[in-house]
Amino acid sequence: MTPIASQAPGSLAGIRVIDLTRVISGPFCTQILGDHGADVVKIEPPGKGDVVRSQGNMVNGESWYFAQFNRNKRSLTLDLRSNDGKRILHRLLEGADVLVENFRPGVLGKIGLDDDTLRERFPRLVVGRINGFGSSGPYRDRPAYDFIAQAMSGFMGVNGPADGDPMRAAPPISDMVASQNLAFGICAALVRRATTGQGEIVETALTNGLIAMMGYLAAEFFATDHVPARTGNDHPMLYPYGLFKASDGEVAIAPSNDTMVERFLGALDKLHLLDDERFADNARRMANRDALREILNDVTETRGVDEWIEHLNRAGVPCGRVHDLRETFADPQVQAQEMRLALEQASGTVPVTGFPVKMREAPATLYHRVPRLGEHTHELLGELGMTGDELEALQARGVI
Amino acid sequence: MTPIASQAPGSLAGIRVIDLTRVISGPFCTQILGDHGADVVKIEPPGKGDVVRSQGNMVNGESWYFAQFNRNKRSLTLDLRSNDGKRILHRLLEGADVLVENFRPGVLGKIGLDDDTLRERFPRLVVGRINGFGSSGPYRDRPAYDFIAQAMSGFMGVNGPADGDPMRAAPPISDMVASQNLAFGICAALVRRATTGQGEIVETALTNGLIAMMGYLAAEFFATDHVPARTGNDHPMLYPYGLFKASDGEVAIAPSNDTMVERFLGALDKLHLLDDERFADNARRMANRDALREILNDVTETRGVDEWIEHLNRAGVPCGRVHDLRETFADPQVQAQEMRLALEQASGTVPVTGFPVKMREAPATLYHRVPRLGEHTHELLGELGMTGDELEALQARGVI
Repeated sequence: MTPIASQAPGSLAGIRVIDLTRVISGPFCTQILGDHGADVVKIEPPGKGDVVRSQGNMVNGESWYFAQFNRNKRSLTLDLRSNDGKRILHRLLEGADVLVENFRPGVLGKIGLDDDTLRERFPRLVVGRINGFGSSGPYRDRPAYDFIAQAMSGFMGVNGPADGDPMRAAPPISDMVASQNLAFGICAALVRRATTGQGEIVETALTNGLIAMMGYLAAEFFATDHVPARTGNDHPMLYPYGLFKASDGEVAIAPSNDTMVERFLGALDKLHLLDDERFADNARRMANRDALREILNDVTETRGVDEWIEHLNRAGVPCGRVHDLRETFADPQVQAQEMRLALEQASGTVPVTGFPVKMREAPATLYHRVPRLGEHTHELLGELGMTGDELEALQARGVI
Repeated sequence: MTPIASQAPGSLAGIRVIDLTRVISGPFCTQILGDHGADVVKIEPPGKGDVVRSQGNMVNGESWYFAQFNRNKRSLTLDLRSNDGKRILHRLLEGADVLVENFRPGVLGKIGLDDDTLRERFPRLVVGRINGFGSSGPYRDRPAYDFIAQAMSGFMGVNGPADGDPMRAAPPISDMVASQNLAFGICAALVRRATTGQGEIVETALTNGLIAMMGYLAAEFFATDHVPARTGNDHPMLYPYGLFKASDGEVAIAPSNDTMVERFLGALDKLHLLDDERFADNARRMANRDALREILNDVTETRGVDEWIEHLNRAGVPCGRVHDLRETFADPQVQAQEMRLALEQASGTVPVTGFPVKMREAPATLYHRVPRLGEHTHELLGELGMTGDELEALQARGVI
């Protein structure tokens, strides 16, 4: 356990997390906890480990997809189907604050850790879990996957071009949102434990997380009983808003209220359009969106993207370039915010995304590189008092 | 303060939050804290309040958009530009655990609460803030908006149909993700405070939050130095995956590994396709995606959506219906998970989305209806010892 950065201990310093998760949603959650100082012990099946270790783009034998979700963890191999494996897991839980899992509902029960047992044997433990649909209800046992959660949550139904199919978001947002929800829930439970001494079982589901993100679109449906239409890049309630043509590309422009619309039209020297019957208020601008779009594009096409961005920002109008990922990570603001980090792995430098939650006193930190499979098995089992002979015997039997 | 549900106190019971936020990202964050038991005091400008109170679909004089983000809060009106307003805010902060704001960087400093002052005068206070680009760096003062964060984070660049424009997600996901990030960060800081007694300043930015969600797409860019292409509903690394035609609509199907692909093809009685040179492994299926899609659609078109969903789930293949929001909220699983709640407002029953984070011992609860503007001003200032005369004088001067 060699810290690769020494700073003030993170907010979750002293919190030991036993991490049984794999793939994306669980590992992203435990990485967030690790980024903020928790001691995350990732338990993986001996031999192969988390399936993601061999998925995605491999560079010098290392999956950069795996690296993206597994920094700031230690790796321990353990066969949880064996009795020795179960026994060791129980001992690890005795010294832990948090257990995180993303098995299907019921799987943890099969290794002797159903909810009642967990609450009884480890009364201070906070158990966090992510699944597809929740651990009750008719679909609890269905196999889950981000794409299905995007479809069933109603997200895809409102997302996509007006004249096209329902469309998923490109990143697995139901996974990522679930990770964040669980990281929050675990910390909220730890806040309660600090006063009550009581543990908790915290659960979030891919589908439920996305439903809670439907926000004002859900409100619109509830209020009108009409399903909101897909509107592509057009805002369903505001105009002007969206992508506008510049001479050398497109600019995203989003004036969010009448004051900003005035600033925008003023910056285009088109303030007089507000005297036009067709564009006098937001409702009329929505009704005559295509006509207004054409007039505005005629102006925006006369200058380049950079020029508009500078000019409109000076006028106080929210606007920006549509970045591809290369442009995003090259952007001076993104660099100033350190949203690209470099992990010094044995295989070379691996870039990963940075910390979105900034703390002044106890900042998120790179404590650990991405661990090799089982890299910390001896260290961690040594902490339980196991000796070389025992470990060799366990290894020989494939338990670790 | 009349609780509308009595249950075990939530995880954040006893935590007092002073909430200066407006619009979406801040109010969604503080609502999450309120759902889990925090006592959230929403401070609004006298007269008009949060602008969202008069936006979106109004039913019986009430904005259902506002309701979606402002349950479980008490409302106090206060003119923060007046000296009395500032003085009262300072007194409120003395009894508070958390302050949340989503002003532009620097605005809080103008009312006498710059970071150094906050840390010095309120050493136990956790200050949470959301802004567009972060409070340092060249764009710190730019006006921000969800659409711009979606554009600049690289999200839009990878999102959308293969043959179309970069496309935003329909919900304001950068706002919602920032809310979740901040709710996590505040709780992580409270965990630290429980042992150190120290407050914190926690910040998240719309753009940074979305960048951290780019996950494996960012990894792909880092590893290959190629910007990932937009692929619409197709997965960039897996096939078969996506929307398939049934006789009466479309089915989302997402086998995420070779075992599941076998199950899927077996369920279609098409297992022999794996013997076909073109489809023998994932790489070859990706290369011959269109040919395989056609063969599979020929089969899926022979039955209805419901039939496929039952059949494929029985075979262990992740699949589901592409719900519109009406279907989502009518779904028996969504109902079993209580992802639609009913607020009993004075104006009638207002539906809102439910709690995505479930707790066994201290569950999220509906404690408060959506407050009328200033509904709790007298109650809250009374707690500070202010009397009827003082309150009348403040009201007469427009301070409250």
